[in-house]
Amino acid sequence: MSEIKDFIDKNSPRFLDELFTLLRIPSVSSQQEHREDMYTCARQYVVSLMEAGADKAQIYPTTGHPVVYAEKIIDPGKPTVLVYGHYDVQPVDPIELWKSPPFEPEIRDGAIYGRGADDDKGQSFMHVKAFEYLVSRNELPCNVKFLIEGEEEIGSPSLGAWARENKDMLACDVMLVSDTTMISEDVPSINTGMRGLAYLEVKVTGPDKDLHSGHYGGAIANPINVLCSMIARLIDEKGRITVKGFYDDVVELSAEDRALLGRAPFDPEHFKKSIGVSDLAGEEGYSTLERTGIRPCLDVNGIWGGYTGEGAKTVLPSYAKAKISMRLVPNQDHKKISRLFASHFTSLAPSGVKVEVQEHHGGQGFLAPISSPVYQAAAKAVGQVYGVDPVPSRGGGSIPILAELEGILNAPPLLMGFGLERDTIHSPNESYLLSQFYRGIESIVLFYKYYTK
Amino acid sequence: MSEIKDFIDKNSPRFLDELFTLLRIPSVSSQQEHREDMYTCARQYVVSLMEAGADKAQIYPTTGHPVVYAEKIIDPGKPTVLVYGHYDVQPVDPIELWKSPPFEPEIRDGAIYGRGADDDKGQSFMHVKAFEYLVSRNELPCNVKFLIEGEEEIGSPSLGAWARENKDMLACDVMLVSDTTMISEDVPSINTGMRGLAYLEVKVTGPDKDLHSGHYGGAIANPINVLCSMIARLIDEKGRITVKGFYDDVVELSAEDRALLGRAPFDPEHFKKSIGVSDLAGEEGYSTLERTGIRPCLDVNGIWGGYTGEGAKTVLPSYAKAKISMRLVPNQDHKKISRLFASHFTSLAPSGVKVEVQEHHGGQGFLAPISSPVYQAAAKAVGQVYGVDPVPSRGGGSIPILAELEGILNAPPLLMGFGLERDTIHSPNESYLLSQFYRGIESIVLFYKYYTK
Repeated sequence: MSEIKDFIDKNSPRFLDELFTLLRIPSVSSQQEHREDMYTCARQYVVSLMEAGADKAQIYPTTGHPVVYAEKIIDPGKPTVLVYGHYDVQPVDPIELWKSPPFEPEIRDGAIYGRGADDDKGQSFMHVKAFEYLVSRNELPCNVKFLIEGEEEIGSPSLGAWARENKDMLACDVMLVSDTTMISEDVPSINTGMRGLAYLEVKVTGPDKDLHSGHYGGAIANPINVLCSMIARLIDEKGRITVKGFYDDVVELSAEDRALLGRAPFDPEHFKKSIGVSDLAGEEGYSTLERTGIRPCLDVNGIWGGYTGEGAKTVLPSYAKAKISMRLVPNQDHKKISRLFASHFTSLAPSGVKVEVQEHHGGQGFLAPISSPVYQAAAKAVGQVYGVDPVPSRGGGSIPILAELEGILNAPPLLMGFGLERDTIHSPNESYLLSQFYRGIESIVLFYKYYTK
Repeated sequence: MSEIKDFIDKNSPRFLDELFTLLRIPSVSSQQEHREDMYTCARQYVVSLMEAGADKAQIYPTTGHPVVYAEKIIDPGKPTVLVYGHYDVQPVDPIELWKSPPFEPEIRDGAIYGRGADDDKGQSFMHVKAFEYLVSRNELPCNVKFLIEGEEEIGSPSLGAWARENKDMLACDVMLVSDTTMISEDVPSINTGMRGLAYLEVKVTGPDKDLHSGHYGGAIANPINVLCSMIARLIDEKGRITVKGFYDDVVELSAEDRALLGRAPFDPEHFKKSIGVSDLAGEEGYSTLERTGIRPCLDVNGIWGGYTGEGAKTVLPSYAKAKISMRLVPNQDHKKISRLFASHFTSLAPSGVKVEVQEHHGGQGFLAPISSPVYQAAAKAVGQVYGVDPVPSRGGGSIPILAELEGILNAPPLLMGFGLERDTIHSPNESYLLSQFYRGIESIVLFYKYYTK
């Protein structure tokens, strides 16, 4: 058994205990009621980083939730790795579908269950433990900085400005990020690109109060019916988004690049079964992995209006609302897309209703450089731990801030994620396999070694 | 001043006090938590009816909420009027829009504010007071029965069976109902027909759990997007409902009948202003009053799915639901329409989603006989009180049970309603004008006199 494996084996109860302390803090960044929890969680990260061997670790206020920054500088002449992660988590609704309470982590069938178990407390904590190992053995081969933010799930509204102000402190050669998935335990993969995001909220208002549907039904535009019709018209029968100009900046991949991506193993039957659907859908002319990896899409993330309680209420409601987001591909600008969407959506409204569009957040997609020494070091590390070479893959999700940080720090991000689809992040019963947690720590240690060789 | 006006003037503080006692009871029939309140409210009606002079008044259990029945038989050989009303009310959501708590009635600007102020505690209570007046003066000219039910707002699921069992007890010559509106205080009207109702709830399910919209977005059918598309296809660009066979039983009115209805005064600008909309909408080729009176319509009464809380959540939800109701015209059978809807709606689903349709409740529309002595008596009474002849009108709402009771009891209903659009029944800040409350009592007293002359 290797020394690192042995270290993990001996210390795993303590690692889990420390991680569970983080998981118990309900650091939901989108909800005001958790404002204090954000500080509590940030403080706990500072404690963990100091205990792991950082020279300094502290909380920095921002215009939003605070940022945790830590560093260990062994030699200013050596390369510097900046570990990026986030301590904030998604809301827990629908709470009733959780088998165990989201903020009372527990282990079942070899996996940690709890909000943040994977995204991103579990994954970011692997870096803390890999760092601890290297420091404890005096084997840290380069400078390491940690940037753990508290607003990733709400689009990192404050981090860009803060990073610009603290550009020198954050200076690095590569940003190392574990906040994505790999294809499977048998088919490890390393993410080479992420989609961007434009997230908006829309409101359609008809009458200025709720009305009796018997007295008014048939005579005025019902805002729910109208909203449904407007949403229905956002995607055409070929699965393409109808927003004018939406595809203008989308780069079509070459046949060669598509063939390369097509090498990633994908079993549609298994995929369908894993999420309980009988059929797949999406943009005509693209495979499922292309649809989630290299093509943009539009989803309604939430909708509400009128009476939603028990039984029946014959109301013609005053308004209806929806949260609508678009995943973007590299080269699409989320601000431009948000503008195009707002203008197109408003143009779909019939007379007699008022439409409001509010921008929630957004971020650019990006492509990571596959041929770089950083990627090669990661591939070697992961390949050694998993016993098989990782395949390059494109992630459908978004880490909106990464493209911005890349611009500020002039350092490429490397997305070495250990999550699996089965972790159901953002959903009830989020989990993280213990085996992935341990192999992640091991892979990160090896990455440092190969990166600095 | 007439004797009845004098009586109302002297007793109005007591009348309001008694009515407020009823309004304070939160008898929301659709919500289980109010089950006990239904009994409390029924008991209070029994008290009011006994105090007003009924020979007997009692609560009858049904398979649902109880029925209140009371009677005063002065001479079996004389005609019998059955007063129909209901003591149940609509839910109060959205509660935050109420200016005063819904179950703490108060008077502002000459109107009673509270849930049920008009629909139907306020209106049904006018009958109790008119009855009290006639009994107190020994002037009751005919037999009077009261049937006050507790399930009108949920489609009267139990009353039909109960009425069939108690057919003899309920025997009458006319059903007198105040549960509708008149055009305005200046243009009194009497309802000559009501629309029927078919109310359903639909659910579209995609994946078996909520998913991360980044990882899955673009690759599977999103149940909210799908539900919106299905709803959008229920009404065509001419405002006609696309459910196959929907219009088969709709009777087109003759040009003459349409012209008669067209005589009702209607100011579109005032109508739009009163509900805060900039434009009207509806089925092509029909006027607004026709759209709400003689034409069927389809409205989404509620919709929900995905994340509806504060901020943004990038979820691709497992399911989306909607409450959808159709107002029907006389001769359309609500059971047939519900079947046609379920079958049509299901046929609109793309592969990859599961559709469930659940029937909530329904009721037939009906037409009241305009030329009958009952209508003529009501017209004379209302005309005398308001100083202008009432116009016949068609109500857009539904009292689903009336058509059924008419069949069971073989007695026509007479809809003498004193509500106004401004009362915003079913909405926040339901109200009832004191002047309408008083003029209603007076009109009812006169109706008895003219009806038995």
